[in-house]
Amino acid sequence: MTIQSTPAPDWRVGQWFNTDRPLDLAGLRGRVVMLHAFQMLCPGCVSHGVPQAERVHRQYAQEGVVVLGLHTVFEHHAAMTPLALEAFLHEYRITHPVGVDVTVPGRTVPATMQAYAMRGTPTLILIDRAGHIRFHEFGRPEDLRVGLALGRLLAEPWPATPAVASPGGKDGAAGGCDETGCALPE
Amino acid sequence: MTIQSTPAPDWRVGQWFNTDRPLDLAGLRGRVVMLHAFQMLCPGCVSHGVPQAERVHRQYAQEGVVVLGLHTVFEHHAAMTPLALEAFLHEYRITHPVGVDVTVPGRTVPATMQAYAMRGTPTLILIDRAGHIRFHEFGRPEDLRVGLALGRLLAEPWPATPAVASPGGKDGAAGGCDETGCALPE
Amino acid sequence: MTIQSTPAPDWRVGQWFNTDRPLDLAGLRGRVVMLHAFQMLCPGCVSHGVPQAERVHRQYAQEGVVVLGLHTVFEHHAAMTPLALEAFLHEYRITHPVGVDVTVPGRTVPATMQAYAMRGTPTLILIDRAGHIRFHEFGRPEDLRVGLALGRLLAEPWPATPAVASPGGKDGAAGGCDETGCALPE
Amino acid sequence: MTIQSTPAPDWRVGQWFNTDRPLDLAGLRGRVVMLHAFQMLCPGCVSHGVPQAERVHRQYAQEGVVVLGLHTVFEHHAAMTPLALEAFLHEYRITHPVGVDVTVPGRTVPATMQAYAMRGTPTLILIDRAGHIRFHEFGRPEDLRVGLALGRLLAEPWPATPAVASPGGKDGAAGGCDETGCALPE
Repeated sequence: MTIQSTPAPDWRVGQWFNTDRPLDLAGLRGRVVMLHAFQMLCPGCVSHGVPQAERVHRQYAQEGVVVLGLHTVFEHHAAMTPLALEAFLHEYRITHPVGVDVTVPGRTVPATMQAYAMRGTPTLILIDRAGHIRFHEFGRPEDLRVGLALGRLLAEPWPATPAVASPGGKDGAAGGCDETGCALPE
Repeated sequence: MTIQSTPAPDWRVGQWFNTDRPLDLAGLRGRVVMLHAFQMLCPGCVSHGVPQAERVHRQYAQEGVVVLGLHTVFEHHAAMTPLALEAFLHEYRITHPVGVDVTVPGRTVPATMQAYAMRGTPTLILIDRAGHIRFHEFGRPEDLRVGLALGRLLAEPWPATPAVASPGGKDGAAGGCDETGCALPE
Repeated sequence: MTIQSTPAPDWRVGQWFNTDRPLDLAGLRGRVVMLHAFQMLCPGCVSHGVPQAERVHRQYAQEGVVVLGLHTVFEHHAAMTPLALEAFLHEYRITHPVGVDVTVPGRTVPATMQAYAMRGTPTLILIDRAGHIRFHEFGRPEDLRVGLALGRLLAEPWPATPAVASPGGKDGAAGGCDETGCALPE
Repeated sequence: MTIQSTPAPDWRVGQWFNTDRPLDLAGLRGRVVMLHAFQMLCPGCVSHGVPQAERVHRQYAQEGVVVLGLHTVFEHHAAMTPLALEAFLHEYRITHPVGVDVTVPGRTVPATMQAYAMRGTPTLILIDRAGHIRFHEFGRPEDLRVGLALGRLLAEPWPATPAVASPGGKDGAAGGCDETGCALPE
């Protein structure tokens, strides 16, 4: 999805794993942030989005990429509790920080998912050093594209104003879970 | 694992999914049974054992193979409840019957897992038309081997006495979860 | 492809690799034969058919399966010479016997390919202990199906009359090379 | 392999495919160049290097990446002739330009392979807009790393002086062909 430079909204997280202190966007200014939204029972997240994020974390954390998982549960809430998530992160050997998106009373979609206008899981968002969204895609962007987008963002001087939008990609499918991921009902 | 012909013990299941009536071994006499034990948060089960079982079910159910999943939870019990399992089966589009192995008060390992002397998950067991265990392996037996073992069992006339043991395989690793699966502590 | 039991024709081979003597069908009576036709520059052969055959050879040769490659060149003859084939077999570490199908003056399709009525490469043929064709498929039959068909044939007593046809599969595509393989022009 | 900024030597090509005119380095100043050296019978090239290069070509040619294949034959010369290469490129649907590295009388290693001090095939080399080598690796660098390196090079303004070396990678193995590729004898 081609993104014009949009300021990234803050995330709202109720509980963190794999970090000893909460992370917020303001504190990450100057870093390239890879935010991936997932659900622990979403097949496309488990086979693609989560391992891709972990790969980036293990290979590029020391070069200035901050990888953040966001557990955006919008179905099967009773099965995907923070306690279940903790077991999932343990069994899958996930080491990057993961936050639980907060639920909003009376709404299916949690707060951060709503604020970022995500259409389902997995969704990958890249935020540049200045705090602007530069890549926003629902589905399974391949490693080559994600790497290339990260390389461009890492190459931007800081402080700087972003000048180039990330390359376009195809949008994901809509409605229910399939091989691509789990989509919100329209 | 080379198996001398051993009578398969009955399974003990507390709850069934994807079947409108309980299945028992006696009622499957004359059929080749593929029993696969898994945990919904075991990475090796999710990526290998469960999809392999579903593949066999979809392709060979009408040729007389009965595929049965057995949810043998021996860790993270609070995360892998029947309610969570139901969400998992729904999201992963699993259509073959799955039973929940019953817990035994005071024990980590559930009843059927114990009765079959399984060492962890995933474990694949093939039972011949006469109700004897002919293949019993912890880990990730590849499709070629599983197919060949199934082909041999399907070729046996019924009623008949089994004469040939299945080919040997390597045993799985021990202790915790790794790429192979989740092992019981020794 | 469902196959009624048909006597397998002899193959006609001009040059052998990976064997110190010519192999003929009569000499293999009592063995299950996996004959796979390939071209060294056919992408579907290199990625699927050839490694599948080598897997079966390494795992099941000692259980009575004889794996035979047949180099059935029907295009780019000048590039796929026996000398080039020898380099290919060396670089890809192929250890099972491979014969070069003989060309017929004035015809594009070599002799054995014609005799077996193959539609392109890769083609997989299974011949039972009695010398009858029991599986004949153009394309990429998956390991599960090939394993199951082999298991059934291995289970047949010898001497014996085959009674059960192999399971049906979908036919391959026609015309040129694609992901499936290389098809003969109709 | 970490590369300090080194001027890329010219390549010496005897025959071109997939381009109607010869390409030279001077003419590509201002472009990011991905030069991948391969042999058509090198398994690691066929399964990894060549399709990776084609992927980059198809996705990023219009963003200024020039992908060039270089056929650097250092063994089985009689099997890997330009005529055989042409058949290979046709069957594998390769659309990016490929040049044949020129042989040097009395030497095993062709001229450009020697000039770039390549250790075997596949070798991937990235050259920045100013004509300097910025990435040089024997083996199978994964898409994430290649994408990230390309993204950094694409982000560099032109004209500009490169300031950042590409991330380090592990060197390939030595001697003969294996899963990684084909190495020159030391």
